[in-house]
Amino acid sequence: MIHNLTLSDVLSEHARSRPETTAVVDGELRLTYPHLDARVSRLASALAGRGVAAGDRVLWLGQNSHAILELLLACSRLGAVFCPANWRQSADELRFVLSDLSPKVVVWEHSDTTAALAPGTGQRERSETSAGLAPDAGLAAVDRPVSWVRAGEEYEEFLASGELHDFPPVEDTAPVLALYTAAFDGRPNAALLSSAALVAHSTSLLVVRQMEPGFTFLDNGPLFHVGTMMFCLATLQIGGTNVIMPAFDAEELCRLVDAEKVTQAFLFGQMIDAVVAANAGGKYDLSSLRFISHSAEWDEMTTVDDSPWCRSKMGGYGQTEVGGMLTFLGLAPGAAGFAGRPSPLVQVRILAPDGTELPPGEVGEICARGKSLFSGYFARPELNAAKSAYGWHHTGDLGRREPDGTITFVGPKLRMIKSGAENVYPAEVERALKAHPTVADAAVIGTPDERWHQAVKAVVVTRPGKTATAEELIEHVRSTLASYKKPREVVFAEEIPKKGFTPDYDALDERYGGGNYPGV
Amino acid sequence: MIHNLTLSDVLSEHARSRPETTAVVDGELRLTYPHLDARVSRLASALAGRGVAAGDRVLWLGQNSHAILELLLACSRLGAVFCPANWRQSADELRFVLSDLSPKVVVWEHSDTTAALAPGTGQRERSETSAGLAPDAGLAAVDRPVSWVRAGEEYEEFLASGELHDFPPVEDTAPVLALYTAAFDGRPNAALLSSAALVAHSTSLLVVRQMEPGFTFLDNGPLFHVGTMMFCLATLQIGGTNVIMPAFDAEELCRLVDAEKVTQAFLFGQMIDAVVAANAGGKYDLSSLRFISHSAEWDEMTTVDDSPWCRSKMGGYGQTEVGGMLTFLGLAPGAAGFAGRPSPLVQVRILAPDGTELPPGEVGEICARGKSLFSGYFARPELNAAKSAYGWHHTGDLGRREPDGTITFVGPKLRMIKSGAENVYPAEVERALKAHPTVADAAVIGTPDERWHQAVKAVVVTRPGKTATAEELIEHVRSTLASYKKPREVVFAEEIPKKGFTPDYDALDERYGGGNYPGV
Repeated sequence: MIHNLTLSDVLSEHARSRPETTAVVDGELRLTYPHLDARVSRLASALAGRGVAAGDRVLWLGQNSHAILELLLACSRLGAVFCPANWRQSADELRFVLSDLSPKVVVWEHSDTTAALAPGTGQRERSETSAGLAPDAGLAAVDRPVSWVRAGEEYEEFLASGELHDFPPVEDTAPVLALYTAAFDGRPNAALLSSAALVAHSTSLLVVRQMEPGFTFLDNGPLFHVGTMMFCLATLQIGGTNVIMPAFDAEELCRLVDAEKVTQAFLFGQMIDAVVAANAGGKYDLSSLRFISHSAEWDEMTTVDDSPWCRSKMGGYGQTEVGGMLTFLGLAPGAAGFAGRPSPLVQVRILAPDGTELPPGEVGEICARGKSLFSGYFARPELNAAKSAYGWHHTGDLGRREPDGTITFVGPKLRMIKSGAENVYPAEVERALKAHPTVADAAVIGTPDERWHQAVKAVVVTRPGKTATAEELIEHVRSTLASYKKPREVVFAEEIPKKGFTPDYDALDERYGGGNYPGV
Repeated sequence: MIHNLTLSDVLSEHARSRPETTAVVDGELRLTYPHLDARVSRLASALAGRGVAAGDRVLWLGQNSHAILELLLACSRLGAVFCPANWRQSADELRFVLSDLSPKVVVWEHSDTTAALAPGTGQRERSETSAGLAPDAGLAAVDRPVSWVRAGEEYEEFLASGELHDFPPVEDTAPVLALYTAAFDGRPNAALLSSAALVAHSTSLLVVRQMEPGFTFLDNGPLFHVGTMMFCLATLQIGGTNVIMPAFDAEELCRLVDAEKVTQAFLFGQMIDAVVAANAGGKYDLSSLRFISHSAEWDEMTTVDDSPWCRSKMGGYGQTEVGGMLTFLGLAPGAAGFAGRPSPLVQVRILAPDGTELPPGEVGEICARGKSLFSGYFARPELNAAKSAYGWHHTGDLGRREPDGTITFVGPKLRMIKSGAENVYPAEVERALKAHPTVADAAVIGTPDERWHQAVKAVVVTRPGKTATAEELIEHVRSTLASYKKPREVVFAEEIPKKGFTPDYDALDERYGGGNYPGV
């Protein structure tokens, strides 16, 4: 245990080292580190009271909330696994998550979709069954009680019911956070991250972003996504302050930056423009914000960050499975490869399908080892074996080494469409389309779109003698997947060109106007 | 292996990511990362050829040299343990190290003391026996061949004899570096540090010192000491350049800073004054050096570093057993406790002797857990059990939490004298004195000294009917311990006041003028 450091341990240390520092701000709620520590202990006790033990899952369905950080830390204290799910998913998608993850406790905020899932008032537990799960899901039938706790008053009562006491130590290699990611076969998978991996990733961000005590992060992006979660956790690691926004709102963001002297937020392109517009009169003082240079107005309102994270272009290459960022542009000033150089805590290799390393200049799969890597997907033994072939994590993305040693991200090995900030995997949309009774075959491509970077376009072959309108098929997809995944356009064809068993995407692009794929 | 990251792995990654970056400069020798990587592979093969396998020790006896970094990395590649020993020790002390560590290979530079130990020309191996070791040393009798390789040409031939090939992966939790430290019972112990601990400590320095690619460190302090080694390794971690100086020399330091555009060196007080004097005419451009503010002349020659490491006062609290620094002043601006706050990768507790945590304001032992902690001492099972009592590493130092959560270092639990930059442990000097035939009892205190902070003073009780001069006893200590440990003054007394079995140091200080102890 001498070398152990869980997220719960990080909190325990801050409660001692930073007794007066604000850990979390969420609306009217302000918690110092000792307050947060005490609440997390009570919450862990309350969860244990509902049967949550080491390895069990706890699910959050809702917007950003201080409860996400508290539930994560409480799970760390118990050795359990916390999953903040994308509450914008359809009821069907959330039902899949419930069956797949089989949580002991669900904490939920009210929405049309969550209300359809949660039990009625006064009913604290109900059984979930795995009926309807595909037989290849690798899950045993689930038929056991799930505790549902509604966010707000009920959550506060639940937390207060827990007792303050010490907890036995937990190994920091145990998974603590589950984030649903990329649907490789048209179905999302929960990437499991251990405390050791999250702490390591946080320190790599501390290094590259040069974060210091006093760092205040505005959690305005979704905390179910690694992009916001990774900065939330790095802020925790350095003993800074997390200011939680339920969801992005430009004016409220300005107010919070001013009031809390926020150092950084989760912002890019259009969001920055919206913030500039919201603060056009200079009503709010945004000078505490140290961020990327963007436009003359923005740079005047804020302070341009000169850390490696923001010095030239922001970012690098990353994915949930590596804890967030695998490579950083900030570690490769003037680099040839636009993904930069690996984090100080990982190794990267460009591997051929047979596991041999490719020389600089040749395209292969970006593979990795290191301290920040995930522990595999929950309940996906076959996929896990494939993803860790030859002792290296296979990212599923293509890249190459440039002569200067930097990495270029070439594109996903499986096609990916970028619509707004969201990734859309053709396989997932195709699977949804093929579930419609009139559809014999389908392929999905991305077409260039000025506003959203790409738009989703479906090519559909109908069954003999059957017909459906484009509107019907779009509505069908919308009813089973998140709205942003639905095709903007559907065209009907006689057949889908194939390469082996998979669609010939290059031919489809040429024929139907596909293009603008990310990383190409 | 997916989460593994040894020092050897860090080098392997840099060889790919930084093919043109200079890793090491040592006199005429300049090595890029790919060159260093290839030399380390050859060296590892050559060491394996001399029988070095996982867990075996390799010893360096000499000044600072590129060979220290190469041997460390080669041992990491093999899973072996490398020890750079203090070559300024007496022949007796080095003999103890040889017996204690029982290395398979010794690489040595010529000096009066090493020449007395190394076999004659043409003789490549000789047996070392543990005869003379105290029976409580916990060591099996050692009587086996040791390979001696002389630094310089013979080392180059040895390295060139190794073949380039791949090595099987090594767990990063395996010890890789052994550094001799504090003599708790009058005898030094080799602290074992794993790759995982060293990598973790390096990242904490990257965070606090805000080190970036391009960082160039001048290794002018002794690499057998964690103070210089920790910056050498952090520079390796970020893919920077280590410039090696055999030993400190003010003018040569100026020349190297200018020529290599050095970012930081291992400097303090008197050394900085010597550098300022050596560069009085402004012959060398030292503006690349970003370091602590010291004097008007110094600040004008160099660039004051504004990272947390140097922002107010430099440093914190540390020891070899925690990988270097445990707490940083830079993480606690305006703190009450002058040791600052813990590194982001450790936990600190102030514990009572019974293992219970003490509240803020109460003095207890500084104890720690975390990613950078050592793996225990080599071949000291009983000491290791005592040092890790209650699941916490016991530093042997006293401290307290201040109300603001910061840590104050109060002083060593066992007395320690500070003479210049060196620590002198009374127990060690007392043991040497008591080995003299005329001495019945002895106690050692530190007296305030304007130049050296403290001077070593011995109080001696002679055996009935025996006498010795102060000069004789001083010479006796000098012949068995490093010169700086010898008493400056010896006074003779009728008896040593005791508290239980140990000297009553407070009474001795009062009677014989002791004071100025570090941390009080």
